[in-house]
Amino acid sequence: MSRFLSKNYESLVPYTPGEQVNVKVIKLNTNESPFPPSPKVKAVLSEEVIDKLNLYSDPELKELRNAIAEQFGVTSDMVFCGNGSDDVLAFAIMGFCGRGGKLCCPEISYGFYPVYADIFGVELEQIPLKDDFSIDVNDYIGKNKNIVIANPNAPTGLALSFEDVEKIVSSNPDNIVIMDEAYMAFCGESCMELVKKYGNLLVTRTFSKSHSLAGLRVGFGIGSKEIIDDLNKLKYSFNPYNLNTLSIKAAAAAIADNEYYDDKIAKIVETREKTTVQLKELGFNCTDSKSNFIFASSDKIPASVLAAKLREKGILIRYFNEPKIDNYLRITVGSAEDMQTLVDSIKEIIAEV
Amino acid sequence: MSRFLSKNYESLVPYTPGEQVNVKVIKLNTNESPFPPSPKVKAVLSEEVIDKLNLYSDPELKELRNAIAEQFGVTSDMVFCGNGSDDVLAFAIMGFCGRGGKLCCPEISYGFYPVYADIFGVELEQIPLKDDFSIDVNDYIGKNKNIVIANPNAPTGLALSFEDVEKIVSSNPDNIVIMDEAYMAFCGESCMELVKKYGNLLVTRTFSKSHSLAGLRVGFGIGSKEIIDDLNKLKYSFNPYNLNTLSIKAAAAAIADNEYYDDKIAKIVETREKTTVQLKELGFNCTDSKSNFIFASSDKIPASVLAAKLREKGILIRYFNEPKIDNYLRITVGSAEDMQTLVDSIKEIIAEV
Repeated sequence: MSRFLSKNYESLVPYTPGEQVNVKVIKLNTNESPFPPSPKVKAVLSEEVIDKLNLYSDPELKELRNAIAEQFGVTSDMVFCGNGSDDVLAFAIMGFCGRGGKLCCPEISYGFYPVYADIFGVELEQIPLKDDFSIDVNDYIGKNKNIVIANPNAPTGLALSFEDVEKIVSSNPDNIVIMDEAYMAFCGESCMELVKKYGNLLVTRTFSKSHSLAGLRVGFGIGSKEIIDDLNKLKYSFNPYNLNTLSIKAAAAAIADNEYYDDKIAKIVETREKTTVQLKELGFNCTDSKSNFIFASSDKIPASVLAAKLREKGILIRYFNEPKIDNYLRITVGSAEDMQTLVDSIKEIIAEV
Repeated sequence: MSRFLSKNYESLVPYTPGEQVNVKVIKLNTNESPFPPSPKVKAVLSEEVIDKLNLYSDPELKELRNAIAEQFGVTSDMVFCGNGSDDVLAFAIMGFCGRGGKLCCPEISYGFYPVYADIFGVELEQIPLKDDFSIDVNDYIGKNKNIVIANPNAPTGLALSFEDVEKIVSSNPDNIVIMDEAYMAFCGESCMELVKKYGNLLVTRTFSKSHSLAGLRVGFGIGSKEIIDDLNKLKYSFNPYNLNTLSIKAAAAAIADNEYYDDKIAKIVETREKTTVQLKELGFNCTDSKSNFIFASSDKIPASVLAAKLREKGILIRYFNEPKIDNYLRITVGSAEDMQTLVDSIKEIIAEV
């Protein structure tokens, strides 16, 4: 730390991203899609577009916001786009909580929520999950604090029902409820249609998982026009041109290509279900994941040991050295082939224990 | 505004970007380069790279930081990259001032500095320029506040000498001095080598102007390792993957292509000088601009009227309806052909007055 950093940020502990590697491995540690993006992405990143990069990107992101709005049946003034959904979450927590404001989230969830609370000076209550890792919806009803929930939750993979989300949103009319649907495409029950009914709901999504575009950094939030206006006010005071021209064009092409992505998502869900069955046959306890990862634990081998041994075999998965989940592994659903290699490797490792 | 936005941001007035247009015009209003980016940019944005966008970008930005470090003769741990230099400036003012901290800048300068001060709760002193729009270096010596200065300054185009910058940096050892060198490539005297001598100096640059990549959104800051570590701490607490894979690769290719850009920058400087002579022949007062724009005023026609009449002819330039500069125009240096069209159009307009 330099002697110049403000005391506001002295004790800040940043988020730790999953490891990125260059060597040839089976990479099941950061919930990326095993499939390349839609061919339509390549088609729009033409030489003509690249030659015009001397011009600023559109700060209003009209092309992309229109494409997203059309997909979700809302108007484009209900769509805010960010440089990844992290960007959307950051502006939302910064803006709607404010310094000294109150926010609550599940105790076991996306590791970035406590970091945002810290950097923006927000008082965070982390609410314990039930013993089966599910969220007790009663904990959030009439909470009278701002709320952020990942649905499906990470790293548990468990999802709230549409009815439970509506109970939370409707019972907290004076607070913002952020439903982080980063993993929703993999067959949870989205609450997206509630944005037309409730002015206090912001639903966030990302292109990183379902749309095979983690490397492009595009996310978005959908909510009432007033909420989106607020987020734009912050954006125009921080980084007006927050998405570059290539991201705008590529993401707009991707979101419109339902045929391609529906097929890829179906394959991921199919592989998830098949791998889950195989892991259960090996004695693993797996949650009922509605995401593109599996959350699994075995009595036969400690999670930390299994993660290390898989790593020796060139397979990366995510291990969290944290209370309550330190015997669980979060395994991204990769290609059918890679997942079979994973299962075979786990079999070998268990046989050696 | 929604009723959810924190009182922290109720009175925030966002930055107003220059107008982006789709219709066919001569666009001399946002200081973009008239040239396309280096052909090497196209070459690195290959189908193979696009197909791997399913994987996250490198949060450490190693490829790009190494390329920038090599260009400036520093180590890569002295380089911080942002989603545009706005991103770098935002993190720096947020982190080094802190809420309630003190910052000063020239009264007439980049319009975003007061916006950053506002959003981050920083007390800003705006120091008047001299009557000829130059910065009085004595105003900043031993100031005992954090300092941000655009050098060359915008929209005046005037530059501080290397010696004057060193006086400012050396006399404020307990505060951060940010030298915003967005326009430095167009023949000012860079203070970049001082980053090795002074631990309180952060120099920011952008790919938007000199490198024909405004639409790619990449900027960077160079300073001591300690300062850069602080900026990274904030970045990892806000948006760890702040640049996408395409930006990283394209910017790394661009910064290494000195041959291409030296030629384009020389052409822009040549056109700037030629156009300035022509405008002076038409009776304009022009500052001694060291940037890629001309700051000009005429007694024959009010700046607002001239801007409006040029607009009718399909030529966009920037007019600021602000005290002290409301009879000046900021004209981006475009292609030699477009600048000749501009001069001819101004001649016609003046003849009609």
